[in-house]
Amino acid sequence: MPALQRRLAEFAAARNWQPYHTPKNLAAALSVEAAELVEIFQWLTPEESARVMDDAGTAHRVRDEVADVLAYLLQLCEVLGVDPLDALAAKIERNEHRFPVGGARRTPGE
Amino acid sequence: MPALQRRLAEFAAARNWQPYHTPKNLAAALSVEAAELVEIFQWLTPEESARVMDDAGTAHRVRDEVADVLAYLLQLCEVLGVDPLDALAAKIERNEHRFPVGGARRTPGE
Amino acid sequence: MPALQRRLAEFAAARNWQPYHTPKNLAAALSVEAAELVEIFQWLTPEESARVMDDAGTAHRVRDEVADVLAYLLQLCEVLGVDPLDALAAKIERNEHRFPVGGARRTPGE
Amino acid sequence: MPALQRRLAEFAAARNWQPYHTPKNLAAALSVEAAELVEIFQWLTPEESARVMDDAGTAHRVRDEVADVLAYLLQLCEVLGVDPLDALAAKIERNEHRFPVGGARRTPGE
Repeated sequence: MPALQRRLAEFAAARNWQPYHTPKNLAAALSVEAAELVEIFQWLTPEESARVMDDAGTAHRVRDEVADVLAYLLQLCEVLGVDPLDALAAKIERNEHRFPVGGARRTPGE
Repeated sequence: MPALQRRLAEFAAARNWQPYHTPKNLAAALSVEAAELVEIFQWLTPEESARVMDDAGTAHRVRDEVADVLAYLLQLCEVLGVDPLDALAAKIERNEHRFPVGGARRTPGE
Repeated sequence: MPALQRRLAEFAAARNWQPYHTPKNLAAALSVEAAELVEIFQWLTPEESARVMDDAGTAHRVRDEVADVLAYLLQLCEVLGVDPLDALAAKIERNEHRFPVGGARRTPGE
Repeated sequence: MPALQRRLAEFAAARNWQPYHTPKNLAAALSVEAAELVEIFQWLTPEESARVMDDAGTAHRVRDEVADVLAYLLQLCEVLGVDPLDALAAKIERNEHRFPVGGARRTPGE
């Protein structure tokens, strides 16, 4: 992941895109890409959504949008100086306490 | 990252949340968390957005939302059988061709 | 609707919020409110989502988020000089041609 | 607005799209369209975003996305039995109390 983060930074630098890459803009771009993922699923039943990788064209589109979301997340973390894996590990630990196994919560948190 | 992906899967399994974790629902949850990141920045100027980690409270909130976005992205990849780092590496390669250095494109792609 | 649009403009002006209300910021705020609507439905089955107004608390939350989406849409239209009803009427006409009745398209457009 | 809401309902009925139009799916579609609005502004400075209607092509795109957001909002309200203008009027009244003129709040609410 650090190697990919470096390639993304070099990619943007080589094209002089850094002035556009404010945290505000990268967060917006991330949310736009997340919406493009949602768009793939928006009219599907839950069952259809589980079979989305069976079609080669849709599978390619899914991988493409996953890549875009991850690319903007890594670029946002880069400009903010956030380590995304550290942040996730810390969050999982907090969630172990917030949502204890066997607790009253029946549906996913957040 | 694979270790975190496994912890997320065990976390969901221990709480019987898998029935909720259809690709459709996880994509929606991912987009909701991306919007919570956007919310932090929505009224800030570009300059203010670049200083967002200077305030401890806001920095914590940013790391928290980054973690949530990554958590849902990894869980979505898990149920779809997508390798997010592979997908990103393939996308960067395609983008090297789509947006050549010194090309006409002045603003970021996508 | 024009009366509500005027009240929203006066509300923002009385609080000196206009400098924040750039088209870019209002579009971001609109998408954040749309995500808060999605959040209400994210773990529900299609059937559960159809009964969401049966619970008074959830019904209140839905109306609240609908109001927020409409408020930011009207404020965005105000600063851009766009008439939302005109825009919608024009779009419906274009869609009558793009998606003819009895056409091949089985799922909703867009 | 009620006339446009009726046209949208007839449009969907004539194409047998109602089974797709669950509240959950319509909320997702609304958020996808809101993201398409954000996409127009994502790399613009605040100043550039204020001049977005000067270019005929971009102005058309803005009106198109505004129409899509309003279309899905009205369709969502239709299937839920929510009156969007009533909801907005009620919300403005609550906000008059939450954010008093001259209060401590410097930035927009929500």
